[in-house]
Amino acid sequence: MTARLHCFGESGNAYKAALTLVLSGYDWEPVFVDFFNGATRSPDFRKLNVMGEVPVFEEGGTVLSQSGAIMYHVVARTGKHGGKPGEEPDVLRWILWDNHKLSGPAGMTRFLMNFLPADKRPEAVIAFTQARLKNAYAVLDTHLADRDWIVGKGPTIADLSCCGYLYYPEPFGFDRGDWPNIDRWLDGIAALPGWKHPYDLMPGNPSDRA
Amino acid sequence: MTARLHCFGESGNAYKAALTLVLSGYDWEPVFVDFFNGATRSPDFRKLNVMGEVPVFEEGGTVLSQSGAIMYHVVARTGKHGGKPGEEPDVLRWILWDNHKLSGPAGMTRFLMNFLPADKRPEAVIAFTQARLKNAYAVLDTHLADRDWIVGKGPTIADLSCCGYLYYPEPFGFDRGDWPNIDRWLDGIAALPGWKHPYDLMPGNPSDRA
Repeated sequence: MTARLHCFGESGNAYKAALTLVLSGYDWEPVFVDFFNGATRSPDFRKLNVMGEVPVFEEGGTVLSQSGAIMYHVVARTGKHGGKPGEEPDVLRWILWDNHKLSGPAGMTRFLMNFLPADKRPEAVIAFTQARLKNAYAVLDTHLADRDWIVGKGPTIADLSCCGYLYYPEPFGFDRGDWPNIDRWLDGIAALPGWKHPYDLMPGNPSDRA
Repeated sequence: MTARLHCFGESGNAYKAALTLVLSGYDWEPVFVDFFNGATRSPDFRKLNVMGEVPVFEEGGTVLSQSGAIMYHVVARTGKHGGKPGEEPDVLRWILWDNHKLSGPAGMTRFLMNFLPADKRPEAVIAFTQARLKNAYAVLDTHLADRDWIVGKGPTIADLSCCGYLYYPEPFGFDRGDWPNIDRWLDGIAALPGWKHPYDLMPGNPSDRA
């Protein structure tokens, strides 16, 4: 049975799940969620996911939300990208850090800067969050100084989580040129067989609304 | 061997780990981290944890950071609070949601409102984050409407994660009286044998600096 991923192109959190699915050779298809017209606030969507967020994954009777939970489901089914024995706690640690310190604020800042009308942008919030994000980029760049992947010697869902918002073209204060180790690591992920950019992997992107 | 948890009382993220340890009957002791005098920025601490955060857990040669990763370690060792078979994906989902949508912004907002000099408080950021947090409280309160625990029929690390910042006395915009289901659920956690308030479980609290 083909699994379904409720998603839209602009969501870096959905991208993490979609990228894990495609790089793991999973049988899946995207289901477009019209976020910008309020789809995640509808009663039907809330029934599917009380959290009111994408991604949501459906396979048979299994319904999962949260990109990390979906990634772990794919690891359990395919045996791929979970890390070698003993590396699991470190993989989980970086996924949690990503949710808290990297993708969380990065996704919000990108939304505020690019998907809100100019006169509704909370400039003080954007400046504050960009400053906090610099600490997160510095942590990741330092960690990657002498390694190709976040955990161990191969790509894991820790990498596929942390990269969630870092390929998007819309500005939010992240410039690959400022972080050479992150830059090299992103090239390494993009060189994996089957890798796709978020706008090529999921339906919906800003040009649809231009 | 007694495990060591690097922590301080004001950290709700450290509290999640400490509470899981104590409720699971683990052999552990707290190690005070003098966060307010810059201890987490020191080279020695960064060597222990590149992320520069508490909690950090040490046991023999094992070093773990991120409250969620520590909680999973305790579950693996004790078999307690991990949920019943089949509930694991839901437990993980709520821990990830907590990192992203609840404890992440709650911890930050509480810090900005209570632990910064009044003339340095970014009021626009505080107001913005409080508004976002209301959505998170509403999601959790809705979810708890017809249940005692976040997942299944007993306490799991999903509960111990989501409650991390919700027992503290310092104001950050969360009022238990506004959220009756959360209020009842917090009483349920506090009734578990061995439960302690964060300031009774870990060294350091605001009165030390008064």
